[in-house]
Amino acid sequence: MKNEKKTLSRRDTLAAAFPKPWKNRKSQNLLEDLPWLKISVDSVLLPNGKEIENFYQIELPEYAVVVAQTEDGLILMERQYKHAIGKIILNLPSGYLDSHETPLACAQRELLEETGFMANSWQHLGSFCVDGNRGCGKMHAFAASGAYWAAEPQNEDTEEIEVIQKKPEDVLRALIHGELETLGPAFAVGLAFLCPSSPLHHLSHNLKMI
Amino acid sequence: MKNEKKTLSRRDTLAAAFPKPWKNRKSQNLLEDLPWLKISVDSVLLPNGKEIENFYQIELPEYAVVVAQTEDGLILMERQYKHAIGKIILNLPSGYLDSHETPLACAQRELLEETGFMANSWQHLGSFCVDGNRGCGKMHAFAASGAYWAAEPQNEDTEEIEVIQKKPEDVLRALIHGELETLGPAFAVGLAFLCPSSPLHHLSHNLKMI
Repeated sequence: MKNEKKTLSRRDTLAAAFPKPWKNRKSQNLLEDLPWLKISVDSVLLPNGKEIENFYQIELPEYAVVVAQTEDGLILMERQYKHAIGKIILNLPSGYLDSHETPLACAQRELLEETGFMANSWQHLGSFCVDGNRGCGKMHAFAASGAYWAAEPQNEDTEEIEVIQKKPEDVLRALIHGELETLGPAFAVGLAFLCPSSPLHHLSHNLKMI
Repeated sequence: MKNEKKTLSRRDTLAAAFPKPWKNRKSQNLLEDLPWLKISVDSVLLPNGKEIENFYQIELPEYAVVVAQTEDGLILMERQYKHAIGKIILNLPSGYLDSHETPLACAQRELLEETGFMANSWQHLGSFCVDGNRGCGKMHAFAASGAYWAAEPQNEDTEEIEVIQKKPEDVLRALIHGELETLGPAFAVGLAFLCPSSPLHHLSHNLKMI
């Protein structure tokens, strides 16, 4: 009986708790060095009447991440130094969208520049806000299949990249064992196995590992 | 023959392209309001001898995200306003680690505070750097099973939350259809289906949807 009462009480709470949007009272620019970042601070009014005067917003460029499968069935991956982690990590082809570039065009350009591969078949796996509180840009995940080698890689100064090819099951194993250390590329791998539109999706039903 | 030559050329390129770490020449603090954020700028020396004088680093608090399955087999989700997106979104129980708090303790506290549920069985699904270039904190994903209602939710001022319970297949469908709009919670759902240690893992082999 006590449990039943609790459950009813809870239901009442839930019914009353429909979330409402906040109001933005003012916004102040604190730091700007485009296209890299822009930091601002909002003064926001909450639905309960309270005000928060230092709710920070962080604008970072959007980026695309590619899970590309070659004609031989292997996944194109990279080893690359990442400064925020301070070491060389396992990564996927990825990069910031240029001005006015679509996410797909960015994904195709980054795959070619970083690995030298092109692909004819592309699927959009999803696009996500990096941080619901601060912003921090947007991640666009793509799968590509039938990738073939087309040219020498053309990397930027900040990109010293070793391209490696891995079996799909080894990529999923790397994800699950924590060897993909950055959120965007790790999630792109996850989506490539979970999304029915992805060429790797059928594998997720057969992988009784790990 | 032409293709073969290209492949050899490519192999030579790869053999030479082992990535090396960058050197941090100096670091300057630009903006600090802890525990919320700290922005600094590094002057870095690349392996090719070039120097970048404005490589920004963004420190944000680490956070935990929970995919909790109730005793009835449903997943505890939330509808909540997120200021960086400017609207009410579908979310998971999640929150910043308090000072000296472990990721697991944070996950358990946030589940209880935001939903009123506790769980006896917990699995760590993975921890990830949010942004390999800038940092932006760390995300820790957990799965919990056998969750039971224990108390009224105790939300913070910034958290006006509607708790909802969804079938696992509907949660995966929401992920694939783009209804989970933030990277951390969306990825936690993905991991909950992909990781063999997760109570939802067995479902990923049976879901012939979507």
